[in-house]
Amino acid sequence: MSRRPRRLVILAEGEFRPHAAKTALGVIRYGSDPVLAVVDSTRAGGNASQLLGPGFDVPVVATLGEVLPLGPTALLLGIAPTGGRLPGSWRSIILEAIGAGLDVLSGLHTFISEDREFVAAARGAGVELIDYRKPPERMETSVGRLHRAGSRVILTVGTDCAIGKMSVALELRRAARDAGLSASFVPTGQTGIMIEGWGAAIDRVVSDFVQGTCEWLAEEGEARGDWVFVEGQGSLDHPAYSSVTLGLIHGFTPHAMVLVHKPGLAEHDFDHLPGRSFPLHPLPEMIRIHEQIAGLVAPSRVVAVALNTSLLDEASACREIDRTAAETGLPCDDPFRFGGAKLFAALRERVDALPWVASERTEAMA
Amino acid sequence: MSRRPRRLVILAEGEFRPHAAKTALGVIRYGSDPVLAVVDSTRAGGNASQLLGPGFDVPVVATLGEVLPLGPTALLLGIAPTGGRLPGSWRSIILEAIGAGLDVLSGLHTFISEDREFVAAARGAGVELIDYRKPPERMETSVGRLHRAGSRVILTVGTDCAIGKMSVALELRRAARDAGLSASFVPTGQTGIMIEGWGAAIDRVVSDFVQGTCEWLAEEGEARGDWVFVEGQGSLDHPAYSSVTLGLIHGFTPHAMVLVHKPGLAEHDFDHLPGRSFPLHPLPEMIRIHEQIAGLVAPSRVVAVALNTSLLDEASACREIDRTAAETGLPCDDPFRFGGAKLFAALRERVDALPWVASERTEAMA
Repeated sequence: MSRRPRRLVILAEGEFRPHAAKTALGVIRYGSDPVLAVVDSTRAGGNASQLLGPGFDVPVVATLGEVLPLGPTALLLGIAPTGGRLPGSWRSIILEAIGAGLDVLSGLHTFISEDREFVAAARGAGVELIDYRKPPERMETSVGRLHRAGSRVILTVGTDCAIGKMSVALELRRAARDAGLSASFVPTGQTGIMIEGWGAAIDRVVSDFVQGTCEWLAEEGEARGDWVFVEGQGSLDHPAYSSVTLGLIHGFTPHAMVLVHKPGLAEHDFDHLPGRSFPLHPLPEMIRIHEQIAGLVAPSRVVAVALNTSLLDEASACREIDRTAAETGLPCDDPFRFGGAKLFAALRERVDALPWVASERTEAMA
Repeated sequence: MSRRPRRLVILAEGEFRPHAAKTALGVIRYGSDPVLAVVDSTRAGGNASQLLGPGFDVPVVATLGEVLPLGPTALLLGIAPTGGRLPGSWRSIILEAIGAGLDVLSGLHTFISEDREFVAAARGAGVELIDYRKPPERMETSVGRLHRAGSRVILTVGTDCAIGKMSVALELRRAARDAGLSASFVPTGQTGIMIEGWGAAIDRVVSDFVQGTCEWLAEEGEARGDWVFVEGQGSLDHPAYSSVTLGLIHGFTPHAMVLVHKPGLAEHDFDHLPGRSFPLHPLPEMIRIHEQIAGLVAPSRVVAVALNTSLLDEASACREIDRTAAETGLPCDDPFRFGGAKLFAALRERVDALPWVASERTEAMA
């Protein structure tokens, strides 16, 4: 995974909106490379700041051609559709980018680096095709590895997909660093990998190796910091993705979990048959079942709730945060909206007091 | 998947014993093709009947050469090691088999049909290399498909890997058919596929598609019978494989589950770090958590306990069956040892009385 700086154009044709374009939005918000523009002809004239706030001034344009004079070096495919397939209409835009000398960066299940037409064009143009979702070569099952003494592994879990588990982990890492601690972030999906430059897309790993992959990712995270914030995936009650979620819980064996929820979302938001609906479960039930099922392999606690209050105005958000804290008895905040400092301070105290963390500390000091 | 009859030799060099050779034993017990011999030089002179009982008279021989005069048509690799890699010492035996004109059948993660040396040799000899663990081309996420009205989908779950979940499903299917019902078996692992000629090795599927694959396997099973017995995998508390287990639970959304347990087994039996141990959980706890976590997506009940009493003599087995029935309040038997008729009759009554089965029946009749 190359880390040379890039100047990005993000392709999100027809899809530059929350959820559908979560890869685009994540890279704009947290990535280190400058983003020159987003291509979405249906939203041309708009700006990323309308979705992300004033700090994120990235124009939305109708065509790739409009951005080429600004000197981009790579086209990043900025969507994560169900099943991860390449929209057919994107082929010509990708070929245009290759022809213009841009690398192409993808997080789709459909690997662009295995597509004959793209490969031939890229060879001709001397550009790279990078698939961030390619699974690692290591095919290892879990062996019951213990955490490094002194580390605290925190996994974000949630009540649905695509509600901010990666963002919460990144905000908490920032808060931990701001508090003077050594902290790392473990990317488990393509957007996190694009942002951080390492990791593994767990949903692309062969299922037999999911927990083994999490185990060595934990080791990598612990080599990078004492407070290890792991990007969660899916939800434990998700009809399509719960097995990936459980793989993270039993593979990372986190000391503690942070439950992410989006008030206002009542049902799982995924491509399902018409007429079916899958309601979200109440937070206290989700907290209990996460702790129970984690505890089948290693003890863990939900130590905080992070709300994604993007559907609420600020006053309602504050009320919902207070209500949730009272309902769950846990520290609660929206670290995306209000910063992660307060939530981190509250969870830090709880994590350090967990018996399995305290005993590890004692062992490390002995 | 070819269904032309074969005359099999099973390779289990150094490993022809319970657990390690579960593929060999499953194929001998339940497969439709005759097995001429098992190759294991460390156990030459032995017989499969020592492990499986008098009905299964298959000699163990030291070398492939000894079996060739009997006219075998295929060599089946009869082990399922952790991580599914090909033991290095087996290469020369496989090449010998190919040279002698035998097809080679494998359930390993290491695909023999992608091994250059094997492929070249097979082409020269005009034989087939078949990888039963190759994942299906369909890459589909779950869409919340409903069961066919009138079907009853029963998933075997367990307290550990390799304790008999496939065998219990096969014995219950036999019992259902003996009771005059239309019944099918859904193979979810390589041994089941070898026996049945269809299915998918779920542990080889990309994790994002695990639940989607289970969904269409359920549809296939329902096309083959009304009582659909699904081969379970792993266990919900398994440090290495629990995510595959949950994928089956949420992907098949079984009407009911049968919990398989092996009395005498105290810890999860898998390749883990020295000094670590992962105790099994009590049956009542396992029953409760299976029902809770299944219920996050669709209601289900554990309706029976199937014991694998192979570590006990017959009197102890009977006592343990009675004790377990009392402990759990559920019908209990060892269908492998005593046949599945009694257990099936008891679970049939319970399944038909489940509200979500009864209401489907009403809908179907309306």
